Amino acid sequence: MLGYILNPEVEKYLKSLPQERDTVLEEMEEYAGKNNFPIIGREGGRVLHLITKIKNPRLIVEIGSGFGYSAYWFAKASEKGKVVLTDYQEKNINLAKRFFEKGGIENKAKFRVGDGIEIGKEYKNIDILFLDLEKARYLEAIKELENNISENGIVIADNVLLQGKVILEPESRKSKIIREFNEYMFKKFFSVIIPIRDGILIACKKS
Amino acid sequence: MLGYILNPEVEKYLKSLPQERDTVLEEMEEYAGKNNFPIIGREGGRVLHLITKIKNPRLIVEIGSGFGYSAYWFAKASEKGKVVLTDYQEKNINLAKRFFEKGGIENKAKFRVGDGIEIGKEYKNIDILFLDLEKARYLEAIKELENNISENGIVIADNVLLQGKVILEPESRKSKIIREFNEYMFKKFFSVIIPIRDGILIACKKS
Repeated sequence: MLGYILNPEVEKYLKSLPQERDTVLEEMEEYAGKNNFPIIGREGGRVLHLITKIKNPRLIVEIGSGFGYSAYWFAKASEKGKVVLTDYQEKNINLAKRFFEKGGIENKAKFRVGDGIEIGKEYKNIDILFLDLEKARYLEAIKELENNISENGIVIADNVLLQGKVILEPESRKSKIIREFNEYMFKKFFSVIIPIRDGILIACKKS
Repeated sequence: MLGYILNPEVEKYLKSLPQERDTVLEEMEEYAGKNNFPIIGREGGRVLHLITKIKNPRLIVEIGSGFGYSAYWFAKASEKGKVVLTDYQEKNINLAKRFFEKGGIENKAKFRVGDGIEIGKEYKNIDILFLDLEKARYLEAIKELENNISENGIVIADNVLLQGKVILEPESRKSKIIREFNEYMFKKFFSVIIPIRDGILIACKKS
């Protein structure tokens, strides 16, 4: 499935363009590679950074943070805001904390262990809600949390093309759930899917 | 080259998701198709709409508007802002004006005939600078106008992958110029290339 969405030559070209280096992010990417830990990747991270710069959010809540790769991009880009990280596994959250400390941006984050959706409910006026939990719970997550998004808030969801499986295996359980999620997002919000990596959905409220 | 960047099956899936209809935009798409007039397309237009919603700009300046397709997306999404359309050809600008009137959003636009870069220089504090002029002049355009962008302003440029030619024909004159432009944008700004249609670059200032 690798290369199904985007021509790998195009991806290579995008990666070849001049980029700032960040040793903490590089270390996180190395950790992900060694441990086969799925992350949004460099190109995806750059999209989060750009959107954060444009939005200038006060509160970002991540439902499913892993060891903090996407949160690191959000926090770095956010001038006045805070990122809430959530993950079931204490080990991941502790690792995230260490990376944030290494980068000197731990003051921009709140580290929470537990069920992301339940923790998310504690927050109101979320400016960016980021979904990266188990795919089977995407629809549940947005339905439970959409009223906690601020008036001009946005939703970003990772993996909404399932490396092409939403198209190649439309009848699989996972695909059905993600297809249903995408349809919900396009109906209820104004949504766009950025076809890099595994597909990143970005949505704002309709007006 | 069609389908070189993005898998056509993915594009088909994205198009299949529920979308609001807009009869003026549909008419514009029909006009573009019949007259072989290059436009940013539905998926590209949706990206412009989303970014405008997130940014909430006061001033959008387009360098190269054609008959107003991208400007229409900007204007529709913009609540308090104005879009300045520029094109060499009076015929195109008049057509744009008619479409805007049909959609009842002509009060959100300024219609200008002439050299886009020269007209652009008249405007300060541009919140979104949109480049869609002759590819040979992209670099000139950003160098001439970057100081006219507002403090948190952004730049959006269409066709930065030349349907894949930047990769397939790197030595052609057009590719060289666009590659140089992309490198400049990645060095000077924080840039991301959205690989839909012909490649859309979105950039904000570095901080």
